[in-house]
Amino acid sequence: MYKYLHNINTPEDIKKLDIDKLNILSNEIRKFLVKSVSNTGGHLAPNLGVVELTLALHYVFDSPKDKLIWDVGHQSYVHKIITGRREKFDTLRQFEGISGFPKKSESIHDIFDTGHSSTSISVGLGLAVARDIKNEKSHIISIIGDGALTGGMAFEALNHLGHTNTNMIVVLNDNEMSISKNVGSISNYLCNIRTNAAYKKVKDEIENIANHIPKIGKTFYETAGRFKNSLKYLLMPGALFEEMGLKYFGPIDGHDIEELINTFKNIKKVQGPVLVHVITKKGKGYKFAEECPDKYHGVGPFRIDKGVSESFIDTYSKIAGNKLLELAKLDDRVVAITAAMPSGTGLNKFQQVYPERFFDVGIAESHAVTFAAGLAANGLRPYFAVYSTFLQRGYDQIIHDACIQNLPVTFLIDRAGIVGDDGETHHGIFDLSYLSSMPNLKIMSPKDKHELEKMIQHSIKINTPVAIRYPRGEAISINDSADDKDIDKWEILNEGKDIAIIATGSMVKTSLDAKDILCNNGLNITVVNARCIKPLDEKLLQTIAKSHNTIITLEDNVLIGGFGSYVNSYLIKFKFKGDIVNMGWPDKFIEHGKVDILYDKYALSAQKIASRILDEIN
Amino acid sequence: MYKYLHNINTPEDIKKLDIDKLNILSNEIRKFLVKSVSNTGGHLAPNLGVVELTLALHYVFDSPKDKLIWDVGHQSYVHKIITGRREKFDTLRQFEGISGFPKKSESIHDIFDTGHSSTSISVGLGLAVARDIKNEKSHIISIIGDGALTGGMAFEALNHLGHTNTNMIVVLNDNEMSISKNVGSISNYLCNIRTNAAYKKVKDEIENIANHIPKIGKTFYETAGRFKNSLKYLLMPGALFEEMGLKYFGPIDGHDIEELINTFKNIKKVQGPVLVHVITKKGKGYKFAEECPDKYHGVGPFRIDKGVSESFIDTYSKIAGNKLLELAKLDDRVVAITAAMPSGTGLNKFQQVYPERFFDVGIAESHAVTFAAGLAANGLRPYFAVYSTFLQRGYDQIIHDACIQNLPVTFLIDRAGIVGDDGETHHGIFDLSYLSSMPNLKIMSPKDKHELEKMIQHSIKINTPVAIRYPRGEAISINDSADDKDIDKWEILNEGKDIAIIATGSMVKTSLDAKDILCNNGLNITVVNARCIKPLDEKLLQTIAKSHNTIITLEDNVLIGGFGSYVNSYLIKFKFKGDIVNMGWPDKFIEHGKVDILYDKYALSAQKIASRILDEIN
Repeated sequence: MYKYLHNINTPEDIKKLDIDKLNILSNEIRKFLVKSVSNTGGHLAPNLGVVELTLALHYVFDSPKDKLIWDVGHQSYVHKIITGRREKFDTLRQFEGISGFPKKSESIHDIFDTGHSSTSISVGLGLAVARDIKNEKSHIISIIGDGALTGGMAFEALNHLGHTNTNMIVVLNDNEMSISKNVGSISNYLCNIRTNAAYKKVKDEIENIANHIPKIGKTFYETAGRFKNSLKYLLMPGALFEEMGLKYFGPIDGHDIEELINTFKNIKKVQGPVLVHVITKKGKGYKFAEECPDKYHGVGPFRIDKGVSESFIDTYSKIAGNKLLELAKLDDRVVAITAAMPSGTGLNKFQQVYPERFFDVGIAESHAVTFAAGLAANGLRPYFAVYSTFLQRGYDQIIHDACIQNLPVTFLIDRAGIVGDDGETHHGIFDLSYLSSMPNLKIMSPKDKHELEKMIQHSIKINTPVAIRYPRGEAISINDSADDKDIDKWEILNEGKDIAIIATGSMVKTSLDAKDILCNNGLNITVVNARCIKPLDEKLLQTIAKSHNTIITLEDNVLIGGFGSYVNSYLIKFKFKGDIVNMGWPDKFIEHGKVDILYDKYALSAQKIASRILDEIN
Repeated sequence: MYKYLHNINTPEDIKKLDIDKLNILSNEIRKFLVKSVSNTGGHLAPNLGVVELTLALHYVFDSPKDKLIWDVGHQSYVHKIITGRREKFDTLRQFEGISGFPKKSESIHDIFDTGHSSTSISVGLGLAVARDIKNEKSHIISIIGDGALTGGMAFEALNHLGHTNTNMIVVLNDNEMSISKNVGSISNYLCNIRTNAAYKKVKDEIENIANHIPKIGKTFYETAGRFKNSLKYLLMPGALFEEMGLKYFGPIDGHDIEELINTFKNIKKVQGPVLVHVITKKGKGYKFAEECPDKYHGVGPFRIDKGVSESFIDTYSKIAGNKLLELAKLDDRVVAITAAMPSGTGLNKFQQVYPERFFDVGIAESHAVTFAAGLAANGLRPYFAVYSTFLQRGYDQIIHDACIQNLPVTFLIDRAGIVGDDGETHHGIFDLSYLSSMPNLKIMSPKDKHELEKMIQHSIKINTPVAIRYPRGEAISINDSADDKDIDKWEILNEGKDIAIIATGSMVKTSLDAKDILCNNGLNITVVNARCIKPLDEKLLQTIAKSHNTIITLEDNVLIGGFGSYVNSYLIKFKFKGDIVNMGWPDKFIEHGKVDILYDKYALSAQKIASRILDEIN
């Protein structure tokens, strides 16, 4: 089926091909990507967009001596394919299979593990400075999207890089997208470059203007304003980057492999920090993905001829988004914020209905939190919907800007707990640990979709910061009995004796299943839904402590500093002398794989939990 | 003594004065500032730099209807003086006195509490958007320094702001400094604006160039490169900000009150986001501070005629910096990083001796962490010296870039624990909570200066991320007995019975003092120095658990998720059935004041701890 692809096992093999063959290879890689990802699921559109770019980089540079850093890293599939991992693509993102992100443990061509956005320039600069100190020679190339460029740390790194004389290449992969359409003034700026001046035309156009200048003469100043805009893009198509101390090259057609190769060959010789502006099309070469690149950013398995079919699953994200929209209809103060995830967080409908009350701030969680605090300080009720792992970027701002002043910002923390296929960098298993020590913050986690709705409903009545954490995926239904006003009280789901499981969030269902298994073993277990994590239901906890010998805590968070740890401190205060067992994620990074496999491996499935409880009492 | 100052009690009083009187008032305010801060200590140089700027803002705008947001906030003294707090300045930064930062609780003119850098544009945009949604009218003005502009979240906010049509004014207070000399390419850029083009001269110069253009004719392109640099600053002195969607005005002399007032009057009428570039001199008007603005950034009490006297105290910062320098001499891989705190973190000597192995990255903790990870990934041993409260800005990066890949980055965490006068926003009492849940990270805290040295010495041998936390202020000496190789084992300082205090860091000394008090009450207490917090010394803890009925943990961190909480989880695992008491900071934000007062108030002084232990056993 493939003429060239089957012979590509190392980057050296790329260098043997001429332009025509590389173009054929590009098509083959696209076919391979679509076929492979249609089976396994994964990040499709970002990879379709960087086929020629990746080939050109490997053609011109010598990996691993020259070091390629893929920002975010979900666009590293082509890189993986041509660095010896093609045959493993059927295991992509599967448990014990290859990761969807660069992993040093997989290949010498993966220089640094990425996953979160906007880190690549910092990493690249670190590698480059270390190279210089060690007096070594190599090229360092960070490939960053225009979406990732909205993250503040990328700017921090540019501010540092532009101030050095270090040889380092930043490839700006400009596809006008983060996951969704990119936002912000930098995005506008890049758009102006694309539309106002193709770099190769600069010479002609400047001469043209020069010819007209004598006629302008003394009126130069008056007309300056008018042609200032075109002039600046002609003189300096990348002025913003030049001002930041980088030599700018571009814009370049990211699907013209010859132009890419020639440009990189020239840039190899340039001294100091360089930015190459490459224009690519996200989803290139697969019709459906070209038309809806955001929909094809990350996909599950699909039929190639039909594309991704619409999901009618009620995810927690969708429930949250719809409930927030309902709340917004009743209360003018409600506004919604996303950091480049309008669709992932279920806010797209909100965005359509209330565009003026919806804010996509780019991949900028730090700003998002403080912006929300500003909105709250002026009387609104902001809801920041964000994945647990990405809210880590706003840690300081939650404390400093929301909590200290006790401002009513609500954090809708999506993808809390283990997320599965994305692995280490994306699991949301730290939030309870980093949030529970923040004064003034109320933390809740629903056992099912009804509780999620009620918590959002309830949050508008609370005049403090609130965090509501819920898992990735399909929203389940356990019962719909909670009164809105009781939502911060714990719920006893089963009254047993001796042993109580106090579980939170998604682990409530697991507890009920474990309880059923133990019931078959003749044990009658108390199951408590700890839907409010902070403040916890001290009264009910005390009652349980008095009536049980063994208390099990269960959470979808790391154990250290998590829910169980917080419960412990109360049990200690109550001088509880029975046994306590904390169950949750251990003190290690959890690999990728289906969540059920991971729960089982780490003894957090209902079956394994039941076994552990049996062991405990024997 | 003062002709006008004594009559200034609200911003309305400013508006009654003419330019000459405002200039006299400026001088009076400077005298008042120097006199007052020489008594109380505080941030001097930043405030001396913004006297005219603050007066002009209050002259033109109507606070509190118009809202002034002071980035960082340590430059808000002048604002405080003229908004009714002049007479409270003798209580500045004292316990129960006025804060050194804006505080909503102090005045209706303080709109938002600040303390950490780079938040003001996000806050201002939040206020402005809320104003628009509520259909209100007011001006929002964020005043941000060029140092704070190196923080990535300021860029995230500009990227968002420049994309809106919101009326908002950003005043860039450009004094070429953060605490020390500002760094990075943006700083260079601002310098070029200052030196290449005074805005008011633009017109003349452009006409001058225009007159010359006919002579250039066809050779325009060839000479373009040469005059490109001046042309761009003439056409667009703030091109970078204009590209980001803001209307740029400046540069303006920040000590010319007439020019300031006229500019702000004009800008009031401008629609959309605006950036005003104001040039100020940090320390202006007090000779010593003008000469060494970094030394006078924040000061203790001093003699006005002699200036700040040099401190010969051995602080933990100094000990850490010197030890790191020693290590660097022996090991070529050692490099040091600061986020705009070369002096505060004790690295200034390192900077002098090894400028090429020292990196001031600006107020950019996120980048600093990932840059360090990049350095480590390429074989170096980076040490990032940073205040505990500011490392909060790098939370995600520590997990994502240092810990997941288990890279040997060492965090020298200065100002851990309560810091005193700076208050809520600056206490370093969260780090144990946010660090201890990070897999692969080793956490240590020395009881005294000898241990700090040994920990730094030891860290170079560890191939994982390491955090060493130590307090602000004078380094004490308890003993110098630890072997380097035992530094990760706990140390028994006193063998008692029944009751054991397990203390960490600065609280070890407090425990010894409490032990002495209790000894006088007939109790013999075990005191353990838990110098390695993670992993903790499981073996010794188990021994103690077996031989004591009551275990007290003591830490200079919030209780939730802190050291005690971590110890609890082990005691629970060991099925310890005695009593446990966790002592540390409660679940609230701790106000400013001398540390001894705060320790006493929150029952963490030796005396209070002894009393609590007596209560516990009775």
